[in-house]
Amino acid sequence: MSDSPWVLPFSAAGGLPAERLGLKGLGLVTMASLELPVPPGLVLTTDTCAAFFAGGEVWPAGLQEQLEQGIQDLEARAGKRFGDLKDPLLVSVRSGAVVSMPGMMDTVLDIGLNHQATEALARRTGDPRFAWDSYRRFVQLFGDVVLGVHYTRFARAQAQVLQGRDIADVDVDGLREVVAALEAVVADHGAAFPHDPREQLRFAIDAVFRSYNSHRARYYRKTHGIPEDAGTAVYVQAMVFGNLGDQSCTGAVTTRNPNTGHRGLMGEWLPRTQGEVGSGHADPLPVTASMEREGATLEAAHPEVFAQLTDTCKRLEAHFCDMQRVEFTVEQGKLWLLQTSPAERTALASVQVVVDLVEEGVIDQRSALLRVDPRKLEYVLRPVIAPDAKRKVIARGLDASPGAASGRVVFEASECREHHERDEPTILVRLDTSPEDIQGMTLAAGILTARGGQTSHAAVVARGMGKPAVVGCTDIQVDYARQLFYAGDSVIRKGDWVTIDGGTGEVMEGRVNMLAPQTDVGAMAKLLAWADSAARLKVRANADTGADAARARTLGARGVGLCRTEHMFFQPDALRAMRRMILADDPRSRRRALNDILPIQRDMFRELFRNMDGLPVTVRLLDPPLHEFLPEREADIADVATDLGVRPESLRARLAQLHETNPMLGHRGVRIGVTSPEVYKTQARALFEAACELTREGVIVRPEVMVPLVGIAKELDRIQALVHDVAEQVFAEYGTEPEYAVGTMIELPRAALIAGQLAKQADFFSFGTNDLTQMVFGFSRDDMGKYFADYQREGILPTSPLAAFDVEGVGEMVRIGVERGRETNPRLPVGVCGEHGADPEGVAFFHSVGVDYVSCSPYRVPVARLAAAHAALGAGPG
Amino acid sequence: MSDSPWVLPFSAAGGLPAERLGLKGLGLVTMASLELPVPPGLVLTTDTCAAFFAGGEVWPAGLQEQLEQGIQDLEARAGKRFGDLKDPLLVSVRSGAVVSMPGMMDTVLDIGLNHQATEALARRTGDPRFAWDSYRRFVQLFGDVVLGVHYTRFARAQAQVLQGRDIADVDVDGLREVVAALEAVVADHGAAFPHDPREQLRFAIDAVFRSYNSHRARYYRKTHGIPEDAGTAVYVQAMVFGNLGDQSCTGAVTTRNPNTGHRGLMGEWLPRTQGEVGSGHADPLPVTASMEREGATLEAAHPEVFAQLTDTCKRLEAHFCDMQRVEFTVEQGKLWLLQTSPAERTALASVQVVVDLVEEGVIDQRSALLRVDPRKLEYVLRPVIAPDAKRKVIARGLDASPGAASGRVVFEASECREHHERDEPTILVRLDTSPEDIQGMTLAAGILTARGGQTSHAAVVARGMGKPAVVGCTDIQVDYARQLFYAGDSVIRKGDWVTIDGGTGEVMEGRVNMLAPQTDVGAMAKLLAWADSAARLKVRANADTGADAARARTLGARGVGLCRTEHMFFQPDALRAMRRMILADDPRSRRRALNDILPIQRDMFRELFRNMDGLPVTVRLLDPPLHEFLPEREADIADVATDLGVRPESLRARLAQLHETNPMLGHRGVRIGVTSPEVYKTQARALFEAACELTREGVIVRPEVMVPLVGIAKELDRIQALVHDVAEQVFAEYGTEPEYAVGTMIELPRAALIAGQLAKQADFFSFGTNDLTQMVFGFSRDDMGKYFADYQREGILPTSPLAAFDVEGVGEMVRIGVERGRETNPRLPVGVCGEHGADPEGVAFFHSVGVDYVSCSPYRVPVARLAAAHAALGAGPG
Repeated sequence: MSDSPWVLPFSAAGGLPAERLGLKGLGLVTMASLELPVPPGLVLTTDTCAAFFAGGEVWPAGLQEQLEQGIQDLEARAGKRFGDLKDPLLVSVRSGAVVSMPGMMDTVLDIGLNHQATEALARRTGDPRFAWDSYRRFVQLFGDVVLGVHYTRFARAQAQVLQGRDIADVDVDGLREVVAALEAVVADHGAAFPHDPREQLRFAIDAVFRSYNSHRARYYRKTHGIPEDAGTAVYVQAMVFGNLGDQSCTGAVTTRNPNTGHRGLMGEWLPRTQGEVGSGHADPLPVTASMEREGATLEAAHPEVFAQLTDTCKRLEAHFCDMQRVEFTVEQGKLWLLQTSPAERTALASVQVVVDLVEEGVIDQRSALLRVDPRKLEYVLRPVIAPDAKRKVIARGLDASPGAASGRVVFEASECREHHERDEPTILVRLDTSPEDIQGMTLAAGILTARGGQTSHAAVVARGMGKPAVVGCTDIQVDYARQLFYAGDSVIRKGDWVTIDGGTGEVMEGRVNMLAPQTDVGAMAKLLAWADSAARLKVRANADTGADAARARTLGARGVGLCRTEHMFFQPDALRAMRRMILADDPRSRRRALNDILPIQRDMFRELFRNMDGLPVTVRLLDPPLHEFLPEREADIADVATDLGVRPESLRARLAQLHETNPMLGHRGVRIGVTSPEVYKTQARALFEAACELTREGVIVRPEVMVPLVGIAKELDRIQALVHDVAEQVFAEYGTEPEYAVGTMIELPRAALIAGQLAKQADFFSFGTNDLTQMVFGFSRDDMGKYFADYQREGILPTSPLAAFDVEGVGEMVRIGVERGRETNPRLPVGVCGEHGADPEGVAFFHSVGVDYVSCSPYRVPVARLAAAHAALGAGPG
Repeated sequence: MSDSPWVLPFSAAGGLPAERLGLKGLGLVTMASLELPVPPGLVLTTDTCAAFFAGGEVWPAGLQEQLEQGIQDLEARAGKRFGDLKDPLLVSVRSGAVVSMPGMMDTVLDIGLNHQATEALARRTGDPRFAWDSYRRFVQLFGDVVLGVHYTRFARAQAQVLQGRDIADVDVDGLREVVAALEAVVADHGAAFPHDPREQLRFAIDAVFRSYNSHRARYYRKTHGIPEDAGTAVYVQAMVFGNLGDQSCTGAVTTRNPNTGHRGLMGEWLPRTQGEVGSGHADPLPVTASMEREGATLEAAHPEVFAQLTDTCKRLEAHFCDMQRVEFTVEQGKLWLLQTSPAERTALASVQVVVDLVEEGVIDQRSALLRVDPRKLEYVLRPVIAPDAKRKVIARGLDASPGAASGRVVFEASECREHHERDEPTILVRLDTSPEDIQGMTLAAGILTARGGQTSHAAVVARGMGKPAVVGCTDIQVDYARQLFYAGDSVIRKGDWVTIDGGTGEVMEGRVNMLAPQTDVGAMAKLLAWADSAARLKVRANADTGADAARARTLGARGVGLCRTEHMFFQPDALRAMRRMILADDPRSRRRALNDILPIQRDMFRELFRNMDGLPVTVRLLDPPLHEFLPEREADIADVATDLGVRPESLRARLAQLHETNPMLGHRGVRIGVTSPEVYKTQARALFEAACELTREGVIVRPEVMVPLVGIAKELDRIQALVHDVAEQVFAEYGTEPEYAVGTMIELPRAALIAGQLAKQADFFSFGTNDLTQMVFGFSRDDMGKYFADYQREGILPTSPLAAFDVEGVGEMVRIGVERGRETNPRLPVGVCGEHGADPEGVAFFHSVGVDYVSCSPYRVPVARLAAAHAALGAGPG
């Protein structure tokens, strides 16, 4: 451990990094050094927590003494003393992780209260009800967090005393009665409730330390990729009371709008409360007038405080160069700042904020680019409800996290998993969410809660996940017992479909028609233009149709990197012909069937090329095995046989012939080109005819023909010769010669290994990292589900290498392929097609090995563009 | 082309290499330079043939003139002239490929005959019948080979004239009548039969050139891996006549026994014949008395000639330092040598000959090792009929190629393929075979012919292929029309099983019990001892049982490189328990089931370890997916369910759960170890208990536990920890600590790529080249049959990479794995297990990259040992 002190007063900790102060501590210490009104407090640095765990959950030597000294310092600054019979000092103990883990760790408030101190507090504030209510909360919180008494036991005991009354309606005697009942619960639990404030403090610090290693905190770190040793600091801070009379309140604001990023304070407050704005257990009020929210504003109720807060927020933004979230308490008219930190924000807002900050001259373009996580850009472009869609809005709540989602209703987070495994989207409906629900929330398509505000757990977590959420939807009544909710006159049961719109707060019955995501986002366009200037790696899109290509182009794709041609065979007329081709006994029938396919494909190529006028279009020749074009189910076999005019037995016989033990390693890709060259010839002819027609019309066509699954140089030889032959014929027929290229996919390990040879012939390489990953790992996408959960649980592989690019293994294979290819042909164009093209880790790696472009699905093009800029700016991914 | 002459007299061609003279030419020219009696002749070098094809089948400039000059030289040496009316010169035109292609190319004899020359020949020899019979043959041969008249048309025309008489019984007038009929066939065909000898010669040379590019010759080169541009020479040589009176004959001898390699002339001759000994169309006589053959010997009939031949053979062996095959003709008592070349021989004989040659001081050990093709050693060890086997011998023929084989009878070579694809062995039964049959012969398990001798096509080809063959089996009557053969009172129909013994010439009904191949072969033992001294690479065996291991040890294996443990789960009792384990719902039942398996496996390990006392035994933990242990067919499901006392639906449900789309990439290998560690624990315990028990008994046990399908370092971590845990427990229980190692297979590309990491933990690497080949190529062993024939036909891949190691791709992956592993741990032991371990190309490669040992099936251990020596001696493979 370090020789530096375990405990530091806020005022003495200036200049220490977040790694030692924790995020919250950094904010508190900075605010203190800016001489903003922060209640005095102490930091127990992250080293202290680490030493605590390293020593087997025992306080390290010196901590006890330093804490005592710190308390004395605190008492001096607060002008109050622990256990004082006139004006007792109360403190909170909070955690402050180095990487934010909202709601994951425990907090204990009002430490220092016991019967005597409560009486003293009552005397000093002249508000015995406040004092005893504080003590009631303290007993519950301390009992739950520190002593491990389940909070439901307190709730039951309290309810028994209240006999249906609301706690707010109970007088001091009633509160004493409740307190006695709660103390009895603690005693019954077998715990000794410490009355000595110093003992309370020690217990509380222990509990907060331990909560860092709670199951839910560990799970959160795992799912959020936070290292286990990131650590946490702990803060002991003098309490201020937002629940002390009418001139007291609690609130939280963000310095800009966390949904849109637009300028202007935004937030919520609650009069006469203590730390409940973020708890989701009460309905807060807006701090300032807005179109979205009604209610008494802080601005109106406490104009001086609001002005002071506004000014404070400006200073904080200027200091931190970023949008902040600020928590505050007003105690009897005096503003106290409890926390400042970079504000959680939607993807859209993160983009808007950095672009605004650049324009405000606060940060430069490089910082702006590096501040946005490329992964988030995907969420900017989430689906929205179609304006003309038929919809039955059954409720409205808060627009907590933008984007629309449809799904089946579930009421337990744990149920999201099984639906997810069936690929069925779910909408998780809760009164409110808690950290226990996080696992399920990651798997839900959207979140709907009846309670809570914009800073509630559900809202913050959903926004962080980039997942649509509607919160605080008081229009709905959730009945867990009967597994349904009421909304107006509708009854929605578990399993019913609903649609939510996290951008408007609307809840709709059934599945509502959605629009392709918004793409014309001014700030994003600016940011991505900066990204393109910074990036070396180009971004293309995987697009199979003209429509895909057009969309990709508006999203900034610089070409099509992968057009999968199989869909062209699945057009109804083409499919019929394809089936005839597969079942044909003689070459003539095969040719006839293929001739029927030709014009259909030519038209599809025309549309694609036209929409990509001037940009390259990489067309992959047919890849899947032929049996994929025949029916699978017995019921369909008869129909298809009748349709084609063949006997079902013939069809079955052909199916049996085409059956494969391991289709992934089967008769597909270039192997089809070798055994059925006429299929590739037809594709080549359709492609070149389309290219020639458009060339004549003045469209600039840049087709790149790509041969899949090549593993042997002679395979490529053969198909290249075939393509060149067809091109020559078609060009002669049309009297025009558009430029084209013929290259190879590198998706088999052997292709990467013999890349030096392949590069002699290939006009380009395109790495198919999906198949390459499967071959390198010996995993089958279709089967790995059976054991992969165990692999994740055991920490053998944290994420599927099909989702997150495996730099170590597959990356090495790619590196070998690129190196060897470029040894033979230093100017060889090299691309990557497949979803890894939009995985920031993957993009960073592809940049580093000299790949020229990546190609991913249209909606992820912005992600890839920004990731490419990150790579060029030398940032680690994410 | 070269400036060297196209045509050279034998006497002027001394010193030219076989690449220019052809193999046969080298023999003829050498014999001429040794002043042995060779009829004078000319060589048209391989350059001439190449120029012929390069020029579009036109004679290169100068050839015409050089040939004319050569003929004049030939006439001078022979003392005869073309077309002479007293003593006309007749010549043969033969081919001489650089790489032997027996029977593949055409030959034309008796060139120079026409009506006048025939009359002259009749006068000079005083044997008009001989002359006209020669002319008759000439018309047929020239008509067939040069003019393209199908030989059956001649046969029909001749049969019409003969009206049932034998040609031997026809007088000169009858022969003239036959000749006229044959000439009519030629005329009818529309061809002009050239009468000018020089024109005949030119035509014949053209035809022989062209036969180099015939379909069958090209097929032969392809299947034998002979490069297309190897080329051929052509010889024009004065005829000598083995059919000229009683003092004439033709024959062929080998200088040693081609079946056993033992010393002593061996061969066959036929009196009064011309070039028919090797044709298979007549039954030749033995040249010297032998136990095997009856008939008049050359030694008895022509003692001086025999003595001269014996002396000549000695001189030829001494000159060539190798066993020779010598063709000769005796014309009226004078011996002429027509050919000498290294004799085809059985694998057994090749070994015996080189060992004898070393002991005779003719060659050194290095030459001896390099002269034997390692692949052939497998055939030395082919199965033999068990001495006590019940057998019904139904016929006896010539022991043409040793080894016994059982198979279903087929009468057409083309039928071998479909049986072969069903993995059903066939015995190809023919009157005799011809080059058209070669394709089928490669796929037959054995060959049986009714005709032909030891030098017949069937015998030579079968011996070359190392395939059991019985030829000249005159005991059988083949009826192609009815697809059966008679043998004594047996009728064997197509599809019936027969067994042949190529070592004894016996033909037996049905499938006869066979013995493990002979292993105690003195000469082979000597050769392999020399090989072991020369080799660096060690050879282990793949052995799953104690019996396998014992056999492997006698064949020289230095350990077990791969014990596949799945068979231990397939023991009836173990299988039942294994199924219970797979179907168990709770951990306790699983454990109970595994506990039942434990003692069975322990006993099996005991036997294995005991038989490998002192040698390492590499045990692969369970590899196949669990569904392989459950029944597949609906009929079996009910039985197994009853047996296990579960409902068939449960069994079906579990089967459905375990079903995989791509089992090759599925839940197998270490993935089972991760998800069901108890299975690996049971295996480890069985292994260590066996090891401890034997160690106590004084046996030296060296187990090496091998983890299959590792692709991620943490997988290996986990299983190593598990194995070490079990070892520690068992060692504590037994109070003994045998040494052991835990290593990893490298059979996924990723394992090779991260070998540097794996080598930090692994005690050894073992490359599983079977799976590695499948992953590197993206081929599935089970499915590649569907397209691989096309790949072979199109020359994309000549042989399956599962049979012949792919040095270029898979080899590169292995090289990377070894290099990276050794970078981390320079002393890392590295092995290869799988059949590539006995592929000489593979072994040469493994040697070159520093692999320590290969492991292959027991019978192939000698192949690998010799291949390892070849590798160390720096020979190219084969």
